[in-house]
Amino acid sequence: MTQSAVKPGIPPAWQAKCSAKREGILSAIPTEWRIPAPIPTPDVHPNVTGKYIQQYLSPREVAITESDAETIVSHTTTGFWTAVEVTSAFCHRAAVAHQLVPCLLELFFDRALSTAKELDSYFTTHHKPLGPLHGLPISLKDQFHISGVETTMGYVGWIDTFEGKPLNSLPPDERDTESELVRLLRTSGAVFYCKTSVPTTLMAGETCNHIIGYTFNPLNRRLSAGGSSGGEGALLALRGSVVGFGTDIGGSIRVPAAFNGIYGLRPSAGRLPYEGAANSMDGQNTVLSVVGPMATTVQGLKLMVQAVLAQEPWFADPLVVELPWRHGVEERVRGGIANKRLTFAFMDDDGMVKPHLPVQRALGLVRGLLEQKGHRVSGIAHHARMQAWHMHGGTDVQAHRALAGEEQLPECFLQPSEHLNAAQVAALNVKKRNYQKAYMDYWNSTATLTGTGRPVDALICPACPSVAVRPGKFKYGVYTTFVNVLDYSSAVFPVTKVDRSVDGSHRPGVPLSEMDAAVQSDYDPDDCHGAPVALQLVGRRFEEEKVLGLVEYVDRLMDEATQRM
Amino acid sequence: MTQSAVKPGIPPAWQAKCSAKREGILSAIPTEWRIPAPIPTPDVHPNVTGKYIQQYLSPREVAITESDAETIVSHTTTGFWTAVEVTSAFCHRAAVAHQLVPCLLELFFDRALSTAKELDSYFTTHHKPLGPLHGLPISLKDQFHISGVETTMGYVGWIDTFEGKPLNSLPPDERDTESELVRLLRTSGAVFYCKTSVPTTLMAGETCNHIIGYTFNPLNRRLSAGGSSGGEGALLALRGSVVGFGTDIGGSIRVPAAFNGIYGLRPSAGRLPYEGAANSMDGQNTVLSVVGPMATTVQGLKLMVQAVLAQEPWFADPLVVELPWRHGVEERVRGGIANKRLTFAFMDDDGMVKPHLPVQRALGLVRGLLEQKGHRVSGIAHHARMQAWHMHGGTDVQAHRALAGEEQLPECFLQPSEHLNAAQVAALNVKKRNYQKAYMDYWNSTATLTGTGRPVDALICPACPSVAVRPGKFKYGVYTTFVNVLDYSSAVFPVTKVDRSVDGSHRPGVPLSEMDAAVQSDYDPDDCHGAPVALQLVGRRFEEEKVLGLVEYVDRLMDEATQRM
Repeated sequence: MTQSAVKPGIPPAWQAKCSAKREGILSAIPTEWRIPAPIPTPDVHPNVTGKYIQQYLSPREVAITESDAETIVSHTTTGFWTAVEVTSAFCHRAAVAHQLVPCLLELFFDRALSTAKELDSYFTTHHKPLGPLHGLPISLKDQFHISGVETTMGYVGWIDTFEGKPLNSLPPDERDTESELVRLLRTSGAVFYCKTSVPTTLMAGETCNHIIGYTFNPLNRRLSAGGSSGGEGALLALRGSVVGFGTDIGGSIRVPAAFNGIYGLRPSAGRLPYEGAANSMDGQNTVLSVVGPMATTVQGLKLMVQAVLAQEPWFADPLVVELPWRHGVEERVRGGIANKRLTFAFMDDDGMVKPHLPVQRALGLVRGLLEQKGHRVSGIAHHARMQAWHMHGGTDVQAHRALAGEEQLPECFLQPSEHLNAAQVAALNVKKRNYQKAYMDYWNSTATLTGTGRPVDALICPACPSVAVRPGKFKYGVYTTFVNVLDYSSAVFPVTKVDRSVDGSHRPGVPLSEMDAAVQSDYDPDDCHGAPVALQLVGRRFEEEKVLGLVEYVDRLMDEATQRM
Repeated sequence: MTQSAVKPGIPPAWQAKCSAKREGILSAIPTEWRIPAPIPTPDVHPNVTGKYIQQYLSPREVAITESDAETIVSHTTTGFWTAVEVTSAFCHRAAVAHQLVPCLLELFFDRALSTAKELDSYFTTHHKPLGPLHGLPISLKDQFHISGVETTMGYVGWIDTFEGKPLNSLPPDERDTESELVRLLRTSGAVFYCKTSVPTTLMAGETCNHIIGYTFNPLNRRLSAGGSSGGEGALLALRGSVVGFGTDIGGSIRVPAAFNGIYGLRPSAGRLPYEGAANSMDGQNTVLSVVGPMATTVQGLKLMVQAVLAQEPWFADPLVVELPWRHGVEERVRGGIANKRLTFAFMDDDGMVKPHLPVQRALGLVRGLLEQKGHRVSGIAHHARMQAWHMHGGTDVQAHRALAGEEQLPECFLQPSEHLNAAQVAALNVKKRNYQKAYMDYWNSTATLTGTGRPVDALICPACPSVAVRPGKFKYGVYTTFVNVLDYSSAVFPVTKVDRSVDGSHRPGVPLSEMDAAVQSDYDPDDCHGAPVALQLVGRRFEEEKVLGLVEYVDRLMDEATQRM
């Protein structure tokens, strides 16, 4: 592929660029926040979350960073906590997190503290918060542009450029711009302090780039943090952040959320603003990448969606639809809970690849809790396999990689391929729409099965057949991609943890497919013991309020049953 | 282009197919509804609407067919009029209309009367209407499928097929299907009785096909009825229908609405269901064709939108967004009217082609009425020129034409061209989105000009630089296409009529462009004397409620001022 001509023994120029950038990131961490080297190896100490990372923090910092987003804003919007102390705590914890598991591509604590000071001063002057997110630190996947901060998206060739374009080739307002999401969150009072790592090209289920290397799973550093929003996933698991934003064209929010035991929402395209963010294969509009929140609680997801919608993003992004947060939908969900009239469809497997034992167990746990409360559950089977992102052969990502001549990483799904032509793209669009229509009719048809006269309220299914994989082992994404093809709303939530004593006796039986055989052969309960096990709750298009309301409910049931990790 | 090999002097086989189909349409008209030949030539009697067509109808039939849609449903849903008498009156008038100006590709009065009988029987049994459109006859552009009725979309090669596919190659449920729009309207109580003519390929601003020939303007048969929903436009002008549905990818609802002095709405894509209708270049999704109502009154448009939305089309079409009719928006419009706080931007010309004198006069009339009421008006300038439909070279339409070997008609915009590749399509999608964003920012920026603190409520501009053109003279569509690129909501409404004594002294001055010179040279006030003059009111994306509310208001002002035709 695209490799620069190198002399034997002399590292190519792009590697020096990587080292400089990598060192720059580390050197932006204040000396007093550096942790003593060496860090124990993953085999000695796989899990660096919780108590492990707490050792580097003050009790006050631990208290702040282990609060959830709702609690934080309840304190920062009332003046009980200052924006500066909260921001400082998260900067410190994120700095330590990155030293334990490389997960940040940018950190800009000075800017963050300066914003926080302005917010505190605003509060002092006006005796009220700037907005509902006053003083809340928010992490962002390194696709979002922040004024004064670089975006590399993992490409070496983007270092010292704007999306690969030389800075001096652009007018100031084009080389120093902010994504609309950033602008709207800022107006709500958010503080930005870091941008999180991505796999080069974004098209991978794990997170690795030449700049900071591989993002391991902080709960078990022998495993992957998932991808492509893997930096977000790892940072949230370490509580270096409580809420952040990722993007998802095939599972890039949901896979790292599942692998790291946090919450992630994939909204329908057009609900939250993508405008002004960097992307791969921009303009491919058969299956759109979407922006969505990731958080340590489901309430954190809801807070983010509500805050962004309150800013009327449909006047900032031409692809966003004017759909304010619909309280009526939330109320109907509450009504359904109270009346025990909710119905859930469970998809235990997709007919191609069976989930591993811990995921099967999670399905059983949630199903049992819902049935016990009197809600109806039924089976559902249907999936799609459409990879629209392949259709133009990834010209842009090949070009961006060629900028610095860096090598292709093995995790990347995307191989150079021939362009489709416009008639083939159109045929693909029709095929996709026909699939959406068939699935819509199928979902409608469940009205005859639920006993409520209404179709099922949601579908519950795996987010991935496995829990966090060993590096290089992410193989099968269809449990998330079918949702992207349908453009449905979907959230991932943690259910339990792998327990080798319970999940040990795996007898896969006759494989459903060659892929199934490969996925099953990867299962090793010793390897993934203690890893989070998550599920996905899928609603129809633009049903974000419903999906979040239902996940909140399931979450509460699990807490009540204390069956959760 | 695609021509079958013919022997000199012997008409090609496709012409015989056309004649048979054409004769079939005429022979479906009951003998007692045939009008005596010959009809006077257009030069002798250009206008066949109003009194002219009334001569063939009973006073009762005239009373029914010259009622507006709201009045009709107020009578049919209360049992004051039967569905059968109303349907029969419209069948008769449509039959006469088609004999005066060829505008129908399908008529199926027996089915219509049978539906009407069932509705009457339903009313007798249940003492209530089936739905809000109980007994209302609705005409449909010949893209919508109705069970038991053919769809040719003007292609000779589609005769005796389903969208060009041999009937015996398809299972029964695929060869005899109904479009979702049809199904939803039927559930609301609508009656279908005819399908209206289109230009072959749909890509023309006039309406002509080899099956029934050219659709002239019934108000002046020397002029065009416009296109591509020209059959709808002509039938509505003749009151052979009061409400119908067309489609619009570049002006195909708005141009015929303007040329025929009726009302037409181009909603944003995803508001009304297109699912299951035939189309050209299906799957091209840079600029989507949309479904919209056409009617003899603005209230008719509103009735249609409300009725379809009441059926929750988002559960029938995967591309429709869950946006019920928003009464709150209507109320805010009424509030703005009452407080004289509405603001309008007027785009007098697009910088490329100046509108003809009658259109300029219409702009002045409406502007004056709004200013007189205390609303603020300001200038606006911006437009787009993007023809996404070109991007795959129209493979499908060439293929459909080739089915029967028919010749290309001169009005068609679409010439065979090379396919774009997927990367070029993606680049076009980005270009379009950037244009949408720039226009959005521009619209937002008007908040500093309006004095209300809010951006302008709507843009008023020409729908076409001319009124109805002479055949072959439709040249310039950018006044409508820029709205399609922006995906804004827009309605066309009649303002006045050409008056050669007022609009006669045209001094075009220095042409703005070569196209301007060509368009200006076509202007002849004698030619178009008496032709309707219309304007377009444009709202932002998904602002259909607002657009209809504002057009209703402007309409009322014009009625009060009795300045209308």
